[in-house]
Amino acid sequence: MAIPAETLFLDPRMEGTLQQQIQQMVAQGILSGRFQPGEKMPSSRKLTQQLGVSRITVTLAYTELMADDYLTSRGRSGYYVSENAPRTPQFEPPKQAPSRAVDWNRALGQRFAGAPSLRRPENWREYRYPFIYGQTDPTLFDHQNWRLCAVKALGQRDFEALTADYYERDDPQLIEFIARHTLPRRGILARPEEILVTMGAQNALWLAAQVLLNQRRTVAMENPCYPGLRNALAQTRCITHPVDIDADGLPPEALPEDLDVVFATPSHHCPTAVTMPLERRQKLIDMASERDFMIVEDDYEFEMSFLKAPSPALKSMDRDGRVIYVGSFSKSLFPGLRLGYLVGAEPFIREARALRAAILRHPPGHIQRTAAYFLSLGHYDSLIRRMGRAYHERRTVMEEAIRTHGLKIAGANAFGGSSFWMEAPEGVDTGVLARNLRAESVLIEPGSPMFLQDNPPGHFYRLGYSSIAASRIPEGIARIARAIEQSTS
Amino acid sequence: MAIPAETLFLDPRMEGTLQQQIQQMVAQGILSGRFQPGEKMPSSRKLTQQLGVSRITVTLAYTELMADDYLTSRGRSGYYVSENAPRTPQFEPPKQAPSRAVDWNRALGQRFAGAPSLRRPENWREYRYPFIYGQTDPTLFDHQNWRLCAVKALGQRDFEALTADYYERDDPQLIEFIARHTLPRRGILARPEEILVTMGAQNALWLAAQVLLNQRRTVAMENPCYPGLRNALAQTRCITHPVDIDADGLPPEALPEDLDVVFATPSHHCPTAVTMPLERRQKLIDMASERDFMIVEDDYEFEMSFLKAPSPALKSMDRDGRVIYVGSFSKSLFPGLRLGYLVGAEPFIREARALRAAILRHPPGHIQRTAAYFLSLGHYDSLIRRMGRAYHERRTVMEEAIRTHGLKIAGANAFGGSSFWMEAPEGVDTGVLARNLRAESVLIEPGSPMFLQDNPPGHFYRLGYSSIAASRIPEGIARIARAIEQSTS
Repeated sequence: MAIPAETLFLDPRMEGTLQQQIQQMVAQGILSGRFQPGEKMPSSRKLTQQLGVSRITVTLAYTELMADDYLTSRGRSGYYVSENAPRTPQFEPPKQAPSRAVDWNRALGQRFAGAPSLRRPENWREYRYPFIYGQTDPTLFDHQNWRLCAVKALGQRDFEALTADYYERDDPQLIEFIARHTLPRRGILARPEEILVTMGAQNALWLAAQVLLNQRRTVAMENPCYPGLRNALAQTRCITHPVDIDADGLPPEALPEDLDVVFATPSHHCPTAVTMPLERRQKLIDMASERDFMIVEDDYEFEMSFLKAPSPALKSMDRDGRVIYVGSFSKSLFPGLRLGYLVGAEPFIREARALRAAILRHPPGHIQRTAAYFLSLGHYDSLIRRMGRAYHERRTVMEEAIRTHGLKIAGANAFGGSSFWMEAPEGVDTGVLARNLRAESVLIEPGSPMFLQDNPPGHFYRLGYSSIAASRIPEGIARIARAIEQSTS
Repeated sequence: MAIPAETLFLDPRMEGTLQQQIQQMVAQGILSGRFQPGEKMPSSRKLTQQLGVSRITVTLAYTELMADDYLTSRGRSGYYVSENAPRTPQFEPPKQAPSRAVDWNRALGQRFAGAPSLRRPENWREYRYPFIYGQTDPTLFDHQNWRLCAVKALGQRDFEALTADYYERDDPQLIEFIARHTLPRRGILARPEEILVTMGAQNALWLAAQVLLNQRRTVAMENPCYPGLRNALAQTRCITHPVDIDADGLPPEALPEDLDVVFATPSHHCPTAVTMPLERRQKLIDMASERDFMIVEDDYEFEMSFLKAPSPALKSMDRDGRVIYVGSFSKSLFPGLRLGYLVGAEPFIREARALRAAILRHPPGHIQRTAAYFLSLGHYDSLIRRMGRAYHERRTVMEEAIRTHGLKIAGANAFGGSSFWMEAPEGVDTGVLARNLRAESVLIEPGSPMFLQDNPPGHFYRLGYSSIAASRIPEGIARIARAIEQSTS
């Protein structure tokens, strides 16, 4: 690779003659590993132009660098970094010396790092028994048709959708599909101006929290809950009120009297996967009207209802515009897509749209258009059916294996889903269990990061089956059962 | 298109027998335009499963609907929405009745809409003389190689980069390219953990503002400035101190004594395009050390230095880690890409990374990988050279036409760029001028939204030449000159 002349600058604070400065600059570049042996140097003519010095100065500097074996010349083809030049094994700019003056404790106006989150090893695909949640299974995903749709969306006809600055707008084709086909499946009718495309469900929850909350507002959230929601709420500095869920999800009677917003997952509680029955939903909606609070409904994974038809979304029962609905394509397509949506009354969507524009403008047009094609050509529905069949089989194998080994299911979705919420014997620390199981090539998700109390119960865990082949499930469950037995004996 | 059974639900509040409820549901769907004439209804078997009612009930409902000419049957192929059914011209769900109970003034915890922004007509490509800024020119953009890189990044080998949840991480290939090739062109050496990929420069500025500021911090910003920055800063509720720029950009001696952060565009001030000379940069850096403030450097459009080599970035002179650097690929590639990056000391990047994870997780992997290929295969450099040549020609034609018509340039970049900052005679309202010129198929950008004071001067405007062919420039400038003359006579 040739080193472009444009990457070379003389540091105004360097000392010595211009020729010495050039020599120093090149030598430092080589010593630091930025220029690698065999790379072609800029010609003396180009470097002359770039640095604004005379040609003879550059030529003399190059001659000196050859004498010191930093550079070699290959006849007429120019100058190269010498193979014998002093070298470092890898490009690694020197770590900045401890800052002379920046006091980072003072310089940072706000802190965001260190919040609890679900971590899994980056190389999780190398594990034989990955009971992890929410990742893509390459054996199920319709990579071929996704690629065809993406290529179609890269075509000349879609040049505008690919390249244009949408400002606050979204791809009209995607919005129309969501309005006409996706939302009616959840019993929801919405106009385009009541829909906003987001960077996945995380972005949708964050936007809803920012628009609805401030430091004087009170929010109720399910306990346990999705840790990403907790991080999003923390940034509004609102008052949070965790409500323990039961076998039917969030109990409305446990909500505090003074309340501004409830965040809930009625169709499929995260992480326990239980579903809120119709009567309880009606009660929650009625209570919101009476007490004047808003509800943000995260309807993730509704497509995975392979056991029976899903109950309609809470939003479908909303007559006042009190429910803000969060949907996502990241679970059913792939999480790297970062594509979801918010549905709500116009005054809400208007604010969320303006906030989205201020933080990132809009989700990339090409991704929106690709998804619009994938959905409208029917590939999405076929994918969902194929995933549903595979998950159904895996779930049956999971239930059988869990029963065989006497493990305890603490929660599961009556409609389908892709995980079981599990309870180990009290006293078992599933964080330790998860670490020990990694040596057995098994991945499980400890439950404690999902609880909101200070001393969370340590013996819950989640087993996802969206990324593990049915044939591997029995042995994986057997290893978990063995590890639990060892840790209690 | 077939209507999927999953989109049909019985509303629990509907009255009458089950058969009547089904009829009502179908009729309402047709009347509202959700189901269109010719669309296939779900089979009675599927609808039976979906609704959990008996098959005979569905069959009787369908028979009634046929009698009323809502549906027709086509022999064995099933039921269809009748071509004679009552219809609405377009699908448009009824606007929600004025909310019964939601008081939106109260329900919204924070307001974001209504901030000043640069608006241009969505159909700007249809104008003959679009002197707009920062959009893609299809005659210059290397659509073919971008598509090839995108297709490569959609391949099986990159399945993980396409689909995976990166959490807080970024594409290592893109980060490596930025570290080894992009930043050295600006005289910057950075380690991977000092770089964060963002959703364009807007997202980078927003993240930097959130991490560095809070309501007790004071920030200095250039006046006039990029309106997107103002919106990002407003959300931190910090104290802002506008500093009028002069012909050399931001004057350091005009900075307030008590200061936490300066936002600046030294290489290329937005919108006047002037460049800060080296001595002033050094003074700004020294002052930051002495007075202990941070600098956020927005180095947008540095690639467009076709007249002479760009001066190194302010960040390249930073020894303390006081400068946070914002770069973007959206200007040189296309704005719909939404891809930029932040460079800064590790303690800063760590916080920005955690905040990014909370608001959107990460920019889509496919886009990161596509950009990495486009950059590393050298297409980016060729594109920049081609754009530079075209902009150079356009700039020469612009200068000539501006001189011919006696218009006044108020600012331009000595290194190149893609716009002129213009000054009309005092008393000319360039907002009105811009509106009048639309009728002449000319687009210009009024300057007043870019000023921070309460009564901004109304006679400045910006002329971009990145989206207009050189051959159209003289006539476009002539029309602007005529319109200015008319408005002053």
